[in-house]
Amino acid sequence: MRILVMNPNTTASMTASIRATATAVAAPGTEILATEPLWGPESIEGHFEGYLSAAAVLDRLTTLDAPFDALVMAGFGEPGREGAQELLDVPVLDITESAAQMAMMLGHSYGVVTTLDRAVPQISDRLLTAGLLQRCAGIRGTGLGVLELEEDARRTERIIVETARELVRAGAEVICLGCGGMAGLQEKVAAELGVPVVDGVAAAVKFAEAVVGLGLTTSTVRSFAAPRPKRIGGWPISGQASQQASELSVSAVPSARNADFSPETSGI
Amino acid sequence: MRILVMNPNTTASMTASIRATATAVAAPGTEILATEPLWGPESIEGHFEGYLSAAAVLDRLTTLDAPFDALVMAGFGEPGREGAQELLDVPVLDITESAAQMAMMLGHSYGVVTTLDRAVPQISDRLLTAGLLQRCAGIRGTGLGVLELEEDARRTERIIVETARELVRAGAEVICLGCGGMAGLQEKVAAELGVPVVDGVAAAVKFAEAVVGLGLTTSTVRSFAAPRPKRIGGWPISGQASQQASELSVSAVPSARNADFSPETSGI
Amino acid sequence: MRILVMNPNTTASMTASIRATATAVAAPGTEILATEPLWGPESIEGHFEGYLSAAAVLDRLTTLDAPFDALVMAGFGEPGREGAQELLDVPVLDITESAAQMAMMLGHSYGVVTTLDRAVPQISDRLLTAGLLQRCAGIRGTGLGVLELEEDARRTERIIVETARELVRAGAEVICLGCGGMAGLQEKVAAELGVPVVDGVAAAVKFAEAVVGLGLTTSTVRSFAAPRPKRIGGWPISGQASQQASELSVSAVPSARNADFSPETSGI
Amino acid sequence: MRILVMNPNTTASMTASIRATATAVAAPGTEILATEPLWGPESIEGHFEGYLSAAAVLDRLTTLDAPFDALVMAGFGEPGREGAQELLDVPVLDITESAAQMAMMLGHSYGVVTTLDRAVPQISDRLLTAGLLQRCAGIRGTGLGVLELEEDARRTERIIVETARELVRAGAEVICLGCGGMAGLQEKVAAELGVPVVDGVAAAVKFAEAVVGLGLTTSTVRSFAAPRPKRIGGWPISGQASQQASELSVSAVPSARNADFSPETSGI
Amino acid sequence: MRILVMNPNTTASMTASIRATATAVAAPGTEILATEPLWGPESIEGHFEGYLSAAAVLDRLTTLDAPFDALVMAGFGEPGREGAQELLDVPVLDITESAAQMAMMLGHSYGVVTTLDRAVPQISDRLLTAGLLQRCAGIRGTGLGVLELEEDARRTERIIVETARELVRAGAEVICLGCGGMAGLQEKVAAELGVPVVDGVAAAVKFAEAVVGLGLTTSTVRSFAAPRPKRIGGWPISGQASQQASELSVSAVPSARNADFSPETSGI
Amino acid sequence: MRILVMNPNTTASMTASIRATATAVAAPGTEILATEPLWGPESIEGHFEGYLSAAAVLDRLTTLDAPFDALVMAGFGEPGREGAQELLDVPVLDITESAAQMAMMLGHSYGVVTTLDRAVPQISDRLLTAGLLQRCAGIRGTGLGVLELEEDARRTERIIVETARELVRAGAEVICLGCGGMAGLQEKVAAELGVPVVDGVAAAVKFAEAVVGLGLTTSTVRSFAAPRPKRIGGWPISGQASQQASELSVSAVPSARNADFSPETSGI
Repeated sequence: MRILVMNPNTTASMTASIRATATAVAAPGTEILATEPLWGPESIEGHFEGYLSAAAVLDRLTTLDAPFDALVMAGFGEPGREGAQELLDVPVLDITESAAQMAMMLGHSYGVVTTLDRAVPQISDRLLTAGLLQRCAGIRGTGLGVLELEEDARRTERIIVETARELVRAGAEVICLGCGGMAGLQEKVAAELGVPVVDGVAAAVKFAEAVVGLGLTTSTVRSFAAPRPKRIGGWPISGQASQQASELSVSAVPSARNADFSPETSGI
Repeated sequence: MRILVMNPNTTASMTASIRATATAVAAPGTEILATEPLWGPESIEGHFEGYLSAAAVLDRLTTLDAPFDALVMAGFGEPGREGAQELLDVPVLDITESAAQMAMMLGHSYGVVTTLDRAVPQISDRLLTAGLLQRCAGIRGTGLGVLELEEDARRTERIIVETARELVRAGAEVICLGCGGMAGLQEKVAAELGVPVVDGVAAAVKFAEAVVGLGLTTSTVRSFAAPRPKRIGGWPISGQASQQASELSVSAVPSARNADFSPETSGI
Repeated sequence: MRILVMNPNTTASMTASIRATATAVAAPGTEILATEPLWGPESIEGHFEGYLSAAAVLDRLTTLDAPFDALVMAGFGEPGREGAQELLDVPVLDITESAAQMAMMLGHSYGVVTTLDRAVPQISDRLLTAGLLQRCAGIRGTGLGVLELEEDARRTERIIVETARELVRAGAEVICLGCGGMAGLQEKVAAELGVPVVDGVAAAVKFAEAVVGLGLTTSTVRSFAAPRPKRIGGWPISGQASQQASELSVSAVPSARNADFSPETSGI
Repeated sequence: MRILVMNPNTTASMTASIRATATAVAAPGTEILATEPLWGPESIEGHFEGYLSAAAVLDRLTTLDAPFDALVMAGFGEPGREGAQELLDVPVLDITESAAQMAMMLGHSYGVVTTLDRAVPQISDRLLTAGLLQRCAGIRGTGLGVLELEEDARRTERIIVETARELVRAGAEVICLGCGGMAGLQEKVAAELGVPVVDGVAAAVKFAEAVVGLGLTTSTVRSFAAPRPKRIGGWPISGQASQQASELSVSAVPSARNADFSPETSGI
Repeated sequence: MRILVMNPNTTASMTASIRATATAVAAPGTEILATEPLWGPESIEGHFEGYLSAAAVLDRLTTLDAPFDALVMAGFGEPGREGAQELLDVPVLDITESAAQMAMMLGHSYGVVTTLDRAVPQISDRLLTAGLLQRCAGIRGTGLGVLELEEDARRTERIIVETARELVRAGAEVICLGCGGMAGLQEKVAAELGVPVVDGVAAAVKFAEAVVGLGLTTSTVRSFAAPRPKRIGGWPISGQASQQASELSVSAVPSARNADFSPETSGI
Repeated sequence: MRILVMNPNTTASMTASIRATATAVAAPGTEILATEPLWGPESIEGHFEGYLSAAAVLDRLTTLDAPFDALVMAGFGEPGREGAQELLDVPVLDITESAAQMAMMLGHSYGVVTTLDRAVPQISDRLLTAGLLQRCAGIRGTGLGVLELEEDARRTERIIVETARELVRAGAEVICLGCGGMAGLQEKVAAELGVPVVDGVAAAVKFAEAVVGLGLTTSTVRSFAAPRPKRIGGWPISGQASQQASELSVSAVPSARNADFSPETSGI
């Protein structure tokens, strides 16, 4: 099976890191594709960038010329998943929800360590909407921006451990790493804390394997029915898409649903 | 004061209708501007289109060359408001929340009549996230698509009344019209039902006047702090924006916050 | 339009202060009346006094000989609003709910600074019942009683700022001043804190203008139907009411609903 | 021990009926006093009347010249309990909460049969505030007003049974009779339905015995601290109270707390 | 009336202590029986032991040869109550819920002091399921295991007071002693804290008297219908039960429902 | 990896059916063991039987002489999981939670079709405690007992489809089969309904593979810390366990945690 992991921002080094995490946990027989949007913010630290990214991700999915069996959206607390669920006929896993769901399999309550404090209400709202907030013991920022995470690996790890420890004191029995850019740190943090640490990318890849393994996919009866045929001006943004995806070897037909889009190559 | 009302889709006749509603309720001294995005779906009936629209609206706001004192977002149940709140230093009102808030001033519980059944969970989630769902007695679709609302005005009115009546039976004491395209029907529906009927556009315009009247605007301490300076590829989408906004006479500097965007005129 | 602002206690200097706040924010064309009950507690700091005040306010409304277009009830966290909604056919705004609703238009979460710690659960319960508690990040008392607020303005301001700062640290992005007697301090507090500060009286006046501006009023289908005709012994308490209201120039018929009360001028 | 049961309205025949129910369930050694306010509505069917009654009940308690060990407030869904809790140093039980609490001891979910449909949101709000709504499967009106309950006992019983049966179908495992005026019907209704039926007056009397039996009373540390000494104009309403309580043989000092009220014998 | 108080663990000295508490608060005419299971853990400090105890308690109830009118289950936060409700046709009170319910009669919010920190989520879950968590201001462990409570009475009391004081600071107006083994300390703790302190065993005994006094018992229509007749291998565990109950003088037929169990005297 | 699937009742044919479902969905390299308790009820349809089963399952786990990497508990809505989480150092998945979690990956809301109506509140409580109830659109019984499910396969399928269809009408976008005995029907039901149908056993097996695949297991810091060393009379019930497990070829050391149990071979 082939799982497409979508880094929501345009920083190719983050795509590489996320791909590495996904590949490391994939089961034998699972192939990982990873890519990022062709336009949009280099990192996502707020609603404005999140909404740009959501459209850029949907644009990437619309124009992508490669078959896959499941999509993993690798932005923590970011919008867009429901749009991808409408667009695709393969299952869509989001790392925010996947991290929380796996944490709930491992302990009574979980905590989330994220980047900036401003992301806390945003993540809280996503978990609330997803119906997964009840068991959340807290969400805390480290004060480190997304791209700062990679600047000094030792400092990053130390701050994450300190922040996570406060959450454990507040009742968290499992810690979720609340940023795709923290992928790879879970083992070190777990070793220091003595509690299970869940990385959302890893969790989502395994859940994608689980869902695909059962032959299941998104329900189309209501919320996530395919988009109705209609005129969408200027869409897709990236047009005939001569842009190069980050290391994505593409070959076949897209799995986008058979909606009758009428993309206009607007002058935009 | 000047209130910008943003129709989230690209159908100019809907912009006109929304402008008419807004203008009809504006206080003396309030000027209504209304426009729509330069690209995106002609109507919004789902998450995919909602996310495209959110980015298209933010794109329109980024390139708009006109000052205004408050923004009203006229898509019912649609995403994007938090992004505009980060981007602008004037208050942002959304018709979903405004309708619910005004309804809660008028009765114990409210109901929402919307277009298609598929919008029901989406609206429910927006109200949940906004902290306004507790007093909601129900949300029901009429089975009419956004653009079908205008096809047969008499039929539309009759179906809205029938649907609203079921909500009243279920405990709703006030009815919210759950689509920007229903603006203008509130009085007829109220007359038939005998309960107050709230149109979100009208409510949001009055609330915008209220907030601006008190000299208040969005808090910037956490959730809605201005976007951090960073590289955003291909943004804004509509570039130097020679496109014409729908009847918008523009004159002055935009009220966008002083973030140091580095728009790249990508080849897109 | 004419808005009646009701100070729930009998301290005329508080009525004056509340009137000043209301007048300062009223739109051109809005006339502010302000008064207080003819009997009852000089300040309200608990349930017992709150319930006395609720009846005294309803008594005042029953005997008031002046037309008005909306009522603002200026007691924070105090009971009685639903009774006024049944009694009157004009809209009724309460400063507790109005403050919270305006705060929710400005930020993700809000906090409330109030007088005594004993008021905290009472305010919390009002917000819970109103369906507005979900976005509340905290309610904190300053330790100052209602009438102590005016004793040393500088101290009051300082303590309010300190208390509000703790709420901001706890996640509040907007602060509500949780006592009618704090009206007038919002600008100073906002300047020191750097977050929007909402005064409930100001918010309620603007919302009253908004509701009246749309020609809407309280729903009568269920919770707030007019009282049924019945015998009410000893009511109204203040009888033929030769008492003088605080600076209220009265002229016309009351807007009380046409219920067939049979007030008995009991020997009480 | 002596339990005072307070009928919230001025209809002496209801006081008699409530006294009969209370007496029938009282343990050996428990003495039941029952009375009603000296002024206020003859029945309570809404918020306006409820708030008048709350003050009238507090007035009655302030002037009552008889010792008692616990108070039972016999209005279903009506306000005022918290005021009595501040005023008295003996425990205060309310029939709304007591009915719900006893029902929760007997089954997983309970339903409430009440009088008019307009009372439903009011009862729901009381149970919500009391923290007892979660297990409520529904609240339904019979369409019978409070004083109509006694008009045709057979019809009343039949309609209560029908309404209760709908609640059982909706998941209620226990039925609460949601009006003090339904006291005495519980056995017949239970026999027809096959589920336990709880009368709030009976439940509250037994709970009062339980609380007094343990030597416990209302906490005074926060919400229900005694009223602060202050000027209360025109209070108590019923002044020196030469009025006759309904069959109450009084003898001793009131159990009201030692607050330093300054009642003014106003000209009211 | 006869109330059976079931100590969930096999430590007879705890049964004696619980019996003493129950007897001390029983009304004249109430007879207290107390016993413990014939097998299972000597103390319960977690889910594993809780589930063993639940079965051991049900085993004890199945084989018990003594009539009683109500059962009090004396394990705080422990499972099993719903099983006993199905098995018996007399009412079943649990000390967790009884403590919370009595606390809610005495104050706005309550706190729970328990033994080990690991019990906190377990108690929280029981209160959540019971629909009684909303008014809970906190649950805190003392760090003392169940059997350590009796080691140094003075230290135990001091630590309970300290822990309770933190809960009062956090908003609790009433304290519940969250372990059957704390029975007897309520008066001392209350004296030091100045807030009401509720012991669950005492509360449950009084509530059992209340329920039995009204002739009520568990609803059988849904959740707690009698077990269906079926084959249960190896049940009851304690077989012909020659084991001696702790000081229980038994005489008559059990009150277990007439289910057609087919106990197999397995070779176990 | 080896996954132990525990049928909670003693009916070996159900074990076989559950094993078949689990084996059918297991990934290459996953070995499925399946067994049932050595004593307890032949089917579980209520709390009494559920609690017996919980102890019987823990007894089976304590005495089981076979290594495994994860446990799947195959009783829908039944207690015991937390006990197994304390006892074992491998992850424990429950089919109730797993079904709900997988459903939430596939649609906005889910519904549960179960056996008897009496199971509905029990399942609801489990989902509430698990923090997974918010997205549940309904739980409905088919009226078929556990063992009746296999009597007439066609009838069973038809009734499940009808019941599920009502849930879809009520808003469910995904259906969960709420009984281990329904395993194997998901494809037929899905084909008829047009919505995804989740079988809990299948979901739990895939989630067990996911958790084990990431090297994660239950957190031991609080709720699910290993049982403390203590005396447990009569435990394990099944003693030296000469009983034969259902087709379980056992070989190695148990994975039970190193708690210092002191099982007494009581005379029971």
